Amino acid sequence: MPKDIRPFEEIRLLFANLPAPCAKSLAAVRARDAQLTKPPGALGRLEEIVEWLAAWQGKAEPTIDGPLVAVFAANHGVVAKGVSAFPPSVTQQMLDNFTAGGAAINQICKSFGVGLKVFELALEHPTGDFSEGPAMEENAAAATLAYGMEAIDGGIDLLAPGEMGIGNTTSAAAIYAALYGGPASKWTGRGTGVDDEGLARKNAVIDSALALHGPHLSDPLEILRRLGGREIAGMMGAILAARLNRIPVVLDGFVACSAAALLHAMDENAIAHCIAGHVSPEGGHREVLRRLGKKPLLDLDMRLGEGSGAAMAIGVVKGALACHRGMATFESAGVSGKS
Amino acid sequence: MPKDIRPFEEIRLLFANLPAPCAKSLAAVRARDAQLTKPPGALGRLEEIVEWLAAWQGKAEPTIDGPLVAVFAANHGVVAKGVSAFPPSVTQQMLDNFTAGGAAINQICKSFGVGLKVFELALEHPTGDFSEGPAMEENAAAATLAYGMEAIDGGIDLLAPGEMGIGNTTSAAAIYAALYGGPASKWTGRGTGVDDEGLARKNAVIDSALALHGPHLSDPLEILRRLGGREIAGMMGAILAARLNRIPVVLDGFVACSAAALLHAMDENAIAHCIAGHVSPEGGHREVLRRLGKKPLLDLDMRLGEGSGAAMAIGVVKGALACHRGMATFESAGVSGKS
Repeated sequence: MPKDIRPFEEIRLLFANLPAPCAKSLAAVRARDAQLTKPPGALGRLEEIVEWLAAWQGKAEPTIDGPLVAVFAANHGVVAKGVSAFPPSVTQQMLDNFTAGGAAINQICKSFGVGLKVFELALEHPTGDFSEGPAMEENAAAATLAYGMEAIDGGIDLLAPGEMGIGNTTSAAAIYAALYGGPASKWTGRGTGVDDEGLARKNAVIDSALALHGPHLSDPLEILRRLGGREIAGMMGAILAARLNRIPVVLDGFVACSAAALLHAMDENAIAHCIAGHVSPEGGHREVLRRLGKKPLLDLDMRLGEGSGAAMAIGVVKGALACHRGMATFESAGVSGKS
Repeated sequence: MPKDIRPFEEIRLLFANLPAPCAKSLAAVRARDAQLTKPPGALGRLEEIVEWLAAWQGKAEPTIDGPLVAVFAANHGVVAKGVSAFPPSVTQQMLDNFTAGGAAINQICKSFGVGLKVFELALEHPTGDFSEGPAMEENAAAATLAYGMEAIDGGIDLLAPGEMGIGNTTSAAAIYAALYGGPASKWTGRGTGVDDEGLARKNAVIDSALALHGPHLSDPLEILRRLGGREIAGMMGAILAARLNRIPVVLDGFVACSAAALLHAMDENAIAHCIAGHVSPEGGHREVLRRLGKKPLLDLDMRLGEGSGAAMAIGVVKGALACHRGMATFESAGVSGKS
């Protein structure tokens, strides 16, 4: 790699060789599915899930031997503007809670046999307040994205990127407004629970940031740098690395999808290996999924982050694969076919 | 019980003492929920699920130590009219498949640690063809319902009634048409996969049965006797016994809900302890759930029966309870509250 190449250009180069779905593995699971003791199509989306696993893992016999929720945590300068119902100290406190096993994501991962790793992203150095200037330098944004790529280390075969960061629904809403058009109120929600005044402040902060950065927001990586957070950069890296390494991704909610949306804006094909785990009631998440072309597996009114919606969806994905792998065939079970 | 009381009257007597939800247990889980390390309401329907478990189990600390899928299997005389894509011999063959562990429901139960029991209901004696006369005698219908009540034996604390029976989507659709008004085409679907001609036959058979039995269909138990199947009677008994014994019920799809709909028609309050696990694309199931006032937990396009949709939903229910029981409180974890 030439030394004088800019960090963002290195990232763009990664998009040149995105693996395609494996047609052979897809055909193999479809052939097996047709023999299983059930009417064709009767398992509905469970069948689609297995096809998706096979196509993106490139395995005729897909696996979920090492599923992982990777939680990226960061702090946001914009919280100084009063956009969150909780103080920024909660980001670190919740990380300690993850380590101690006391958060929702710990319980969900344990329920479904999913691993959990936390990536702490310089919590003591919040990003800049994006309503006054860029959130990050290009070097920092690119380095965090590259660090996020490490989420796939350790032989995992299914990934759900999650996040923790007081203030990050403000950052995610700003990204959606920049990508898809404003005003902020089209995308924002109450996050951890701001009141009407807090929501008005959140909208005003984002709208002023859009006015400030507007001329520079045609490039998704520039949107990340100016309006994003470290956890969003980290999740972008994780999703991209998963694609390059044939690991299917389950998307979480409002904030996690901002990372997917930025990748999608760079290349529509870049998130073809992702399935939407859960649609959140937060802000414009349903509309975001529509724009990404993703139909969520779950719609349980969850709006917690941490990867919690995606982790619940991994339960569904595991159930789907269990059916495909464990069911008898018409022939092996001696069950008659259609009349 | 006086000897001369008619079997259906004995069943009606059971509705006199349906337990109410436990307000004290509900208050206890709400109080704990408010202390857990998450913004209020952020777990959405997962919080509702725990409230439902507590209220109907009557436990301040609800449990899922013994969840069970109870599959009721029966054969239907109406299959002689060509309403199914599969021959009736498949009912017994699929039961053997359940026993051998090869069906979808076996894999899903194993995935989520759910028990599975199969109740075989005189497969060698199909019900009468309901387009020519009543499907059952009152004695048989009542005895099967009573037998279904045994599904709750053995210390279970969560129940999902499921079914297997070639021809039973025809019976369920007839029940919905009788309860909610016809024509048959408003309620029918393709079941295991009938073609256009098969679907036309199915609709014609139901419409002629409605004409035949019409004057006698104002009583839900009479609808069961005339149009139902043994598995539907069994599931009615299971749901009713669960209520009487404070066991919450997760409803499965199109056929299982016909049992719930009959109970609901007898007494709107009789299925208050039931949650809808999954909405099926089969026939009018979405409209049935609307009439029952139930919002499904899952919408995964499954249309297999066997209790499979409900069993998938038990995965969600287990995840919900794990969060409630395992999460740290703001105080225990040292996490700051709202600013």
